[in-house]
Amino acid sequence: MPELRKDPVIGRWVIIATERAKRPSAYVPKVEQKKGGLCPFCFGNETHTPPEVLSYRPANTKKDTTGWWIRVVPNKFPALQVEGQPKRMGEGMYDKMNGVGAHEVIVESPEHNISIADMEEKQVEEIIWAYRDRCIELHKDLRFRYILIFKNHGREAGATLDHPHSQLIALPIVPKRVQEETAGAAKYYDYKERCVFCDIIHQELGENVRIVAENDTFLSFLPFASRFPFETWIISKNHESYFIDIQKNGVADLARILKQTLRKIKYTLGDPPYNYLIHTTPFETDATPYYHWHIEVIPKLTSVAGFEWGTGFYINPTPPEDAASYLAEIANGEAGSAQVIPVEAS
Amino acid sequence: MPELRKDPVIGRWVIIATERAKRPSAYVPKVEQKKGGLCPFCFGNETHTPPEVLSYRPANTKKDTTGWWIRVVPNKFPALQVEGQPKRMGEGMYDKMNGVGAHEVIVESPEHNISIADMEEKQVEEIIWAYRDRCIELHKDLRFRYILIFKNHGREAGATLDHPHSQLIALPIVPKRVQEETAGAAKYYDYKERCVFCDIIHQELGENVRIVAENDTFLSFLPFASRFPFETWIISKNHESYFIDIQKNGVADLARILKQTLRKIKYTLGDPPYNYLIHTTPFETDATPYYHWHIEVIPKLTSVAGFEWGTGFYINPTPPEDAASYLAEIANGEAGSAQVIPVEAS
Repeated sequence: MPELRKDPVIGRWVIIATERAKRPSAYVPKVEQKKGGLCPFCFGNETHTPPEVLSYRPANTKKDTTGWWIRVVPNKFPALQVEGQPKRMGEGMYDKMNGVGAHEVIVESPEHNISIADMEEKQVEEIIWAYRDRCIELHKDLRFRYILIFKNHGREAGATLDHPHSQLIALPIVPKRVQEETAGAAKYYDYKERCVFCDIIHQELGENVRIVAENDTFLSFLPFASRFPFETWIISKNHESYFIDIQKNGVADLARILKQTLRKIKYTLGDPPYNYLIHTTPFETDATPYYHWHIEVIPKLTSVAGFEWGTGFYINPTPPEDAASYLAEIANGEAGSAQVIPVEAS
Repeated sequence: MPELRKDPVIGRWVIIATERAKRPSAYVPKVEQKKGGLCPFCFGNETHTPPEVLSYRPANTKKDTTGWWIRVVPNKFPALQVEGQPKRMGEGMYDKMNGVGAHEVIVESPEHNISIADMEEKQVEEIIWAYRDRCIELHKDLRFRYILIFKNHGREAGATLDHPHSQLIALPIVPKRVQEETAGAAKYYDYKERCVFCDIIHQELGENVRIVAENDTFLSFLPFASRFPFETWIISKNHESYFIDIQKNGVADLARILKQTLRKIKYTLGDPPYNYLIHTTPFETDATPYYHWHIEVIPKLTSVAGFEWGTGFYINPTPPEDAASYLAEIANGEAGSAQVIPVEAS
């Protein structure tokens, strides 16, 4: 069983894969990534994944057969195991826990060669509904304290399969970055009696120099102190602590702005690898006046990683104001947008 | 002038390059890195760098001429500018500061095709003395609150030049990771009245399952809650707050253990890209009983970066105990070690 271990200095929990451990040879660069072969997320290959835990499909079709338009399955190689209770133990001065958790894959479309940037908005809505449905279901499991929804797009961003998919990890701990954000937001609230995220939204709308897109419910913008070039946040314009509290019109607006944002990034930067992740309030905390859920989109454009990891210190070579103006050159619309940089048809 | 900006939620400072900003096209992958051309760090090319601020060279040679064995120069493309006073300003709710700081390059050897793993120990000692000399000199500048010494080895770890070199950034702020470590260590001390790093050393020496190398003064080991496969820390066995307090025998022992560690990593993993960085006590803090300087070595073996950046959540596919046993298979000695994985002569 995998193990959760806690850093004794700064208190960060880490998953250590104690089984299926990778040998040194696994890290030596391969000459070429294997192409082709069977895609377990395509129609007809449903038996190559663990049985589905959710799907959106016509009423007359059976589970684990074709016909679905969204399909959620347990990850075949999970980082955490779903059976058992999280038990905390000491090992001398160190702290650990057995690696209990859920690790699922949200297959975003039956189409193998498409990405959210080019999908119908309706389909993006369905992805968001699937995120929410799984959160609500897993929320019932009292072993879990946090659900992390994220997407790796492109090999360099960690995707091992090309077929469009997101992932979800339900955890018996709260990730460090989320803890820091809730603590920082609580501190700001303590002093100002205002939500720091609401204040950010207010200032961004007023200054209008870092905005990527906007609609009734959501704002997409590049943060003032962006760590990475073209880092973009999508946030609800109204104060909302929990992602799962999103309403029906909100889902449509989020689908639209998520697609617009990813489309602008794709056509400005030549379909770069990226990650996005949803930050929301941990289960154990009631809705608060200070924490505000949001999505962080992080294109992977620079390669200086270990340095940032080791210092928490980031050098961003493109000011967010400049990045915003480049992104603004790409039209929002459905039809083929002006492409600043030609992108190979994928 | 570059700008330092503070994240309003979690308080992290970031350098934003407001001049020489990179356009989107700069991030589109190039087909091939340019090879060859003039190396500004080789003998005879001394005028291609800014004038040296330190060199170790024969007494009868002139500054900025050949003959040196260590040479320190300002970075030609600095992340921060050395002129001016750090002024803090608001921009609505946001906080910023002008980007004052020093950014220097430590050229580690006149030899173009060598790395610390294969250098003479004597030469590695000279690198460490140069780190220390520059810290002492820059410590006198009251504008600076922290000096970050780091090395990027290999393109994927952020090195833009192949010639062996380290870097140094003197900052008007303390990087977040260092703040977290000093705060975490202070908290542990508060409860236990012991240094958390000293306790780690004690447990590691007792368990002897994560040790890479050891000598009179230093221990090299893989941390219990390693974020990355083969992440390795080098730490003084005696409590020492400041890197610059290292003594003469300590420099020799550090050179030996640093070379051994990098050599084991090189020959176990096929000369992977890596970063190392020195974490030490910030200037403004006197020597403390709780913080303990150390070096973190982070091989860049996995590519899932944005996810970790966005969550502070790490999945390590190789337990440090396994990594330690792989590294143990490589001999320490000077002579050609057994190579688990054949490495191209570089």
